[in-house]
Amino acid sequence: MRIKDDKKKEALFLATIKLVNEIGFVSSSVSKIAKEANVSPATLYIYFKNKDDLIVSTYIEIKRSMSNAMLEDFDTTMPVRDILQQTWHKIFSYVSDNREDFRYAEQFSNSPYTDLLDKSEVQKFFEPFIHVIERGIKEKVIKDVHFEILTTFIFSPVTILANPNHCHSFSITEQNVETAFQLAWDAIKL
Amino acid sequence: MRIKDDKKKEALFLATIKLVNEIGFVSSSVSKIAKEANVSPATLYIYFKNKDDLIVSTYIEIKRSMSNAMLEDFDTTMPVRDILQQTWHKIFSYVSDNREDFRYAEQFSNSPYTDLLDKSEVQKFFEPFIHVIERGIKEKVIKDVHFEILTTFIFSPVTILANPNHCHSFSITEQNVETAFQLAWDAIKL
Repeated sequence: MRIKDDKKKEALFLATIKLVNEIGFVSSSVSKIAKEANVSPATLYIYFKNKDDLIVSTYIEIKRSMSNAMLEDFDTTMPVRDILQQTWHKIFSYVSDNREDFRYAEQFSNSPYTDLLDKSEVQKFFEPFIHVIERGIKEKVIKDVHFEILTTFIFSPVTILANPNHCHSFSITEQNVETAFQLAWDAIKL
Repeated sequence: MRIKDDKKKEALFLATIKLVNEIGFVSSSVSKIAKEANVSPATLYIYFKNKDDLIVSTYIEIKRSMSNAMLEDFDTTMPVRDILQQTWHKIFSYVSDNREDFRYAEQFSNSPYTDLLDKSEVQKFFEPFIHVIERGIKEKVIKDVHFEILTTFIFSPVTILANPNHCHSFSITEQNVETAFQLAWDAIKL
């Protein structure tokens, strides 16, 4: 059961995502976000220090929720390829089901707000996944190259393929997502 | 030699990129952009119908310039892999040298302005490159899968790896860019 405070906080996250996606970071003022969330600005300041804190916390919340979806049923006893394949499909499902969250996260990554983010806080959500890639390198099934090259080939195709602004003819079907996974796996496998 | 009109138009493109990157699409008004470009709003309306037209035209101009950089010394008699490799390195150079343009293009792709874009106008800039991929499929050196999956694996790693907000430890050295190319080639090759 949710306590009341959590509901208000979640309403503020949702309002931030909605407003930023509609009118951008600059125009999304604290008062507009509070109004959209149906709370008073004074209440907003109980949860967040200021607008910067709200914007950054919303991003962190999205990443937390994305990593939870990715790591559901995560079974580290499976072969590395199978874990990555299962995770790949889960990311596509998450992105199809949460387009607005995803759009906010993309805009955030291209904004000056990233300077305010403690990146280690987000990285820790994805640690179990990182360990799987490290295991793959150790087991000599994944190429031993710069780590960010590996994660880019695993994560970036999703962000592009799932964005209808980039890919208007690609549809997120099981078959297409599986084909894309085969290319990602070919990229990183040894 | 540039004619005077072109200079004003270019100043307006540059002002749009600068302001949008600093304060976002919504807050970048026509009057602020004109002021930044050191032209009168009336002059701006000689070149552009309205703010929407200016925002979209700036994106098209960036894509034109990006495709020109990519297709410099483009030699279709070379093997498909060599052409892609050369193009890959050229895209990284372009992105390192034109971070502000690139940031604008990324923001644009995540904004509602994409609805106003005639996508075929941008696609035609990249046609010679598209023909090379089609040739690779025909020659059975590239996988015959959904075209947008192929272009995603060729273009999206660049956009992520070259963005310091995403990849803070990856640096654009010849060696790193070449390693990343090898992964991209492994992804798409048959």
